[in-house]
Amino acid sequence: MNLELLGYSAAVITTSSFIPQVYKIYQTKSARDVSLVMFTFFSTGVILWLIYGLILLSWPIIFANTATLIMSLCILFMKIKYDRRGGSKSA
Amino acid sequence: MNLELLGYSAAVITTSSFIPQVYKIYQTKSARDVSLVMFTFFSTGVILWLIYGLILLSWPIIFANTATLIMSLCILFMKIKYDRRGGSKSA
Repeated sequence: MNLELLGYSAAVITTSSFIPQVYKIYQTKSARDVSLVMFTFFSTGVILWLIYGLILLSWPIIFANTATLIMSLCILFMKIKYDRRGGSKSA
Repeated sequence: MNLELLGYSAAVITTSSFIPQVYKIYQTKSARDVSLVMFTFFSTGVILWLIYGLILLSWPIIFANTATLIMSLCILFMKIKYDRRGGSKSA
């Protein structure tokens, strides 16, 4: 198997996996079981990956992490919004 | 800033971000709002990253993705277990 194709497949699958999570929270208006700490740390790490990609000028790293960051921030934003509305405890 | 340090920091932060999610689900015994589709796709993508790392013999990729895979599979396993117990709908 082509190594580059393997890397791109891995990047596309891990990145697009966040779409159903964004959709699920948006649809149910609930993110009680989603960890605020996870997505705060995750978004921070993805920003570092993005800076890393920008320095290396690696377009696969830049594109994959920009898409992941947008979805991770969407999850974080909805988590804060819906938890506040529902009044549930966050962790 | 050292580029290698930046990459390692990004890897450590994104990988360890899954720990609070694993802990949260374990503690609350609930993963209703966590997307089954997300973690199924995510685990699949991480397995591809792991194969990619093994072919390249890149230890940072191998270590980061092994740790991420273990946590992602834990989340998936608990999601299936607790959803079945609670009888809630999964997506």
